[in-house]
Amino acid sequence: MPNRLPEPPQSAWKQRAYRVIFESDTRAGRNFDAALLIAIVLSVVAVMLESVQSISARYGTFLRAVEWFFTGLFLLEYLMRLLVVRRPLTYAFSLLGIIDFLSIVPTLASLLMFGSRYLIVIRTLRLLRVFRIFKLGQFVGEGEFIVTALKASRFKILVFLAAVLTLVTVIGTLMYVVEGGQHGFSSIPKSIYWAIVTVTTVGYGDISPVTILGQTLASVLMIMGYAIIAVPTGIVSAQMAGATKAASVIPPYKQVVCHVCQAPDHKPEAEYCWRCGEKL
Amino acid sequence: MPNRLPEPPQSAWKQRAYRVIFESDTRAGRNFDAALLIAIVLSVVAVMLESVQSISARYGTFLRAVEWFFTGLFLLEYLMRLLVVRRPLTYAFSLLGIIDFLSIVPTLASLLMFGSRYLIVIRTLRLLRVFRIFKLGQFVGEGEFIVTALKASRFKILVFLAAVLTLVTVIGTLMYVVEGGQHGFSSIPKSIYWAIVTVTTVGYGDISPVTILGQTLASVLMIMGYAIIAVPTGIVSAQMAGATKAASVIPPYKQVVCHVCQAPDHKPEAEYCWRCGEKL
Amino acid sequence: MPNRLPEPPQSAWKQRAYRVIFESDTRAGRNFDAALLIAIVLSVVAVMLESVQSISARYGTFLRAVEWFFTGLFLLEYLMRLLVVRRPLTYAFSLLGIIDFLSIVPTLASLLMFGSRYLIVIRTLRLLRVFRIFKLGQFVGEGEFIVTALKASRFKILVFLAAVLTLVTVIGTLMYVVEGGQHGFSSIPKSIYWAIVTVTTVGYGDISPVTILGQTLASVLMIMGYAIIAVPTGIVSAQMAGATKAASVIPPYKQVVCHVCQAPDHKPEAEYCWRCGEKL
Amino acid sequence: MPNRLPEPPQSAWKQRAYRVIFESDTRAGRNFDAALLIAIVLSVVAVMLESVQSISARYGTFLRAVEWFFTGLFLLEYLMRLLVVRRPLTYAFSLLGIIDFLSIVPTLASLLMFGSRYLIVIRTLRLLRVFRIFKLGQFVGEGEFIVTALKASRFKILVFLAAVLTLVTVIGTLMYVVEGGQHGFSSIPKSIYWAIVTVTTVGYGDISPVTILGQTLASVLMIMGYAIIAVPTGIVSAQMAGATKAASVIPPYKQVVCHVCQAPDHKPEAEYCWRCGEKL
Repeated sequence: MPNRLPEPPQSAWKQRAYRVIFESDTRAGRNFDAALLIAIVLSVVAVMLESVQSISARYGTFLRAVEWFFTGLFLLEYLMRLLVVRRPLTYAFSLLGIIDFLSIVPTLASLLMFGSRYLIVIRTLRLLRVFRIFKLGQFVGEGEFIVTALKASRFKILVFLAAVLTLVTVIGTLMYVVEGGQHGFSSIPKSIYWAIVTVTTVGYGDISPVTILGQTLASVLMIMGYAIIAVPTGIVSAQMAGATKAASVIPPYKQVVCHVCQAPDHKPEAEYCWRCGEKL
Repeated sequence: MPNRLPEPPQSAWKQRAYRVIFESDTRAGRNFDAALLIAIVLSVVAVMLESVQSISARYGTFLRAVEWFFTGLFLLEYLMRLLVVRRPLTYAFSLLGIIDFLSIVPTLASLLMFGSRYLIVIRTLRLLRVFRIFKLGQFVGEGEFIVTALKASRFKILVFLAAVLTLVTVIGTLMYVVEGGQHGFSSIPKSIYWAIVTVTTVGYGDISPVTILGQTLASVLMIMGYAIIAVPTGIVSAQMAGATKAASVIPPYKQVVCHVCQAPDHKPEAEYCWRCGEKL
Repeated sequence: MPNRLPEPPQSAWKQRAYRVIFESDTRAGRNFDAALLIAIVLSVVAVMLESVQSISARYGTFLRAVEWFFTGLFLLEYLMRLLVVRRPLTYAFSLLGIIDFLSIVPTLASLLMFGSRYLIVIRTLRLLRVFRIFKLGQFVGEGEFIVTALKASRFKILVFLAAVLTLVTVIGTLMYVVEGGQHGFSSIPKSIYWAIVTVTTVGYGDISPVTILGQTLASVLMIMGYAIIAVPTGIVSAQMAGATKAASVIPPYKQVVCHVCQAPDHKPEAEYCWRCGEKL
Repeated sequence: MPNRLPEPPQSAWKQRAYRVIFESDTRAGRNFDAALLIAIVLSVVAVMLESVQSISARYGTFLRAVEWFFTGLFLLEYLMRLLVVRRPLTYAFSLLGIIDFLSIVPTLASLLMFGSRYLIVIRTLRLLRVFRIFKLGQFVGEGEFIVTALKASRFKILVFLAAVLTLVTVIGTLMYVVEGGQHGFSSIPKSIYWAIVTVTTVGYGDISPVTILGQTLASVLMIMGYAIIAVPTGIVSAQMAGATKAASVIPPYKQVVCHVCQAPDHKPEAEYCWRCGEKL
């Protein structure tokens, strides 16, 4: 989630609106964000419930009304954001801006195309704003820790995934030949799907080998999957163990970040932010 | 499990009863606790067996009698505890007090409402007292070690769970759209349930994708689940590796705790507790 | 596998026979052990194949003959062992002696009781002798490494298992109540079986929740299982990481053990055992 | 993947052809390899699509033509390789040479034997050449890191696998006896297959225990599988943690390798290879 916010606008009321809508270092700003989060959750829950037939049969009209109400609200919010921001295009093409836009479109598009409205689940991505609001230093720090560890391991994980995909392709095709295109192994892509289901130890059982040779091959794949699962875990564990050690060298106050203004580097004993005076 | 016990009462017999019922540093106290544990196990087993129809048909009356017998016993014990403790309310609202109470209620409530009596499995939570009785220093230490490692990782694990839940919501909804509400993906909540079953690699197979697009999406989710499982493991491993190293600095006799009086800091060569003389 | 061998006998031919049968530091001794291993594998494979109906129908008589032949051979070998050993009872009641005995009994017992002969799979345990024969220092060292790491973690793992069993009991019973004894959750023990299948992420799908509440509870259990699986892995990883570090301090030649006489502490450059002159 | 290339040939045009076909340090050489990769992917995809009946019914003739076209191309390429290389036999019996050969054979063999043509998936192994072309130092380094960690753990993993296989054999046979050859446990090999499916937590559910004793035994196996999965993960994690630490001692520029001439030891600030001047 990028924290680079668009530049603030000029006129006074726009500036005030900007602080409320875009920032969260004032009481009004945080209330706005909290209300937004609740609205997002409610609108997503409404769509989910509507997809359940027994509920839809009874409360369908109400739920659709709720959905349109929130879509209207989000449209209004989106237009406001475009209005008060100094450079609307910069916002519109930022990651947050695109997510904001995409979370309105599906409901509107549903007038034209059935099914598309379920895409409003993209709205759930807006929930990631939660980290912006309750910016508890701890959470941000831990999230960054995980992301950093994964990033540092990304080449290892890519090499590992390439190896797994090759394995899965070869064994999937072998199974197609061995099971003779029967017992659910009706094509090579389907057999590869089975191999993925097996090597990841998910094992639905919708397709499973029946011939002795097939079951033997499957056993080999499973035991390999056993050893294979150890690799990504080992990579990430080693990375995190290293990162934890590195982190312990850095003075502890680097970990605490003000949850309002994000000022870092507080003393360990500090109870209030040295920049905005908010309780830490 | 909180170790903070309620204050002892005044009168002599109450004091003696208190030592037997609440504490386990006397022979009588430990015998009481051991008898209690056996009673708990027997009462839980009785309820379990009764739920098996073939057994219930034959021994139903006997098993129900056993259950009522133990419930009566536990009620008596609970009243005794309230009586001998100096501050009954403090005990009644402590964690152990609530568990003690909840383990009696279901049987009584079953007179009014069918099914509720199975809730007496809450009684199994009383088994956690086992750690109080056989307080083998080793076990307590190891338990604390695990709990500490998990606590230290709790923010990382929360961030991780939030990410998994968002992923599961988005992919679950996509699958609902892709599979067209068929093949078991009959609603968004159900599709999210499927996504959880898949990403955790449980894979019941009660719901599984049938369309090519659905199977492709499922494959992506499974491979992601593969990488994802590495994260919590990495977190806990790194934490424990760190804790193990930290622990090795602390002198070894800090690990041994007397299983009767919980006195810590025994010398490594000590065979008896320096406080109560119990064999370590 | 205990390496404590019974004391050698007195008379000359017994001594020679003892060296061949019990020890593996002579060419004859190793040939004997190798022949024994092949016999064990063949006898186990024969029983396995006989259990396959299509094979049993054709080659049943032959396979049964093979089994009786090997059982006779093993009986002879067992009697020989008793004869040449100085203290027959010590051998008979040692772990290896008991395994040797148990691997003969099932075939004989099958004359009296159907099914019992399949227990000759206990013979596979005799295969563990392989480590005695090809006692490649590397393998012994690595095996000991794993066992040591698991032993050091045994208390942590026990505490962990106790927690998992409590969790599984409570959630299993809840599911029995929630699903109303239907959809396969026909009794509490069966529901606990389901909970174990789920929390270990095996997920057969022979029993799976159908009600919304049941699926929600199952989702919680799965996500918990996700976090839970991290614990034993973390424990063992941390232990092994520690052991690896500790091992690297010890001079490297401690790792190499003579595969014939098991003499330890060879110099890193050594090509032959300092005790028996065998090639390392 | 062995990097040892056959010796270059003598005559001028052969030398030029050699550089294009076998090496990738010229623009022409890299273009050749890239074209080859695309051809491999296309030919594999063609075979996969043809195995899907609905696609095969419509585009079968076209897809078969595509396959024969690429097979012809690869045959031509293989002959070229034999021609321009100085020692054709050395190439023909190198790992890459054998893979190159095997990826042509299946299509030709399909004229004689049905099914054999699906073996052209061996062609996917040729994709491993990708690492040769885009020899991004990072990838090569990471791949080697994983391979090294796995190699260093190979004895531990072998011991572990031996233990798992013994466990699976013993429990599989027990289940065959316990379930009485019914409920899918129709033979010992099939029961062992079930045990592997269970202990690896794949859990298809095509075979699952029905009797109480069987489900109890299965529960024990699952809980053991739980603890067992921790072992390979622990091994690899510990190995990687150690390797990471070791790697951090080596100066960082050892990690960057020129993706054209593979020259190592670039300075961290270097933007171009010190040997061939290629952009790093």
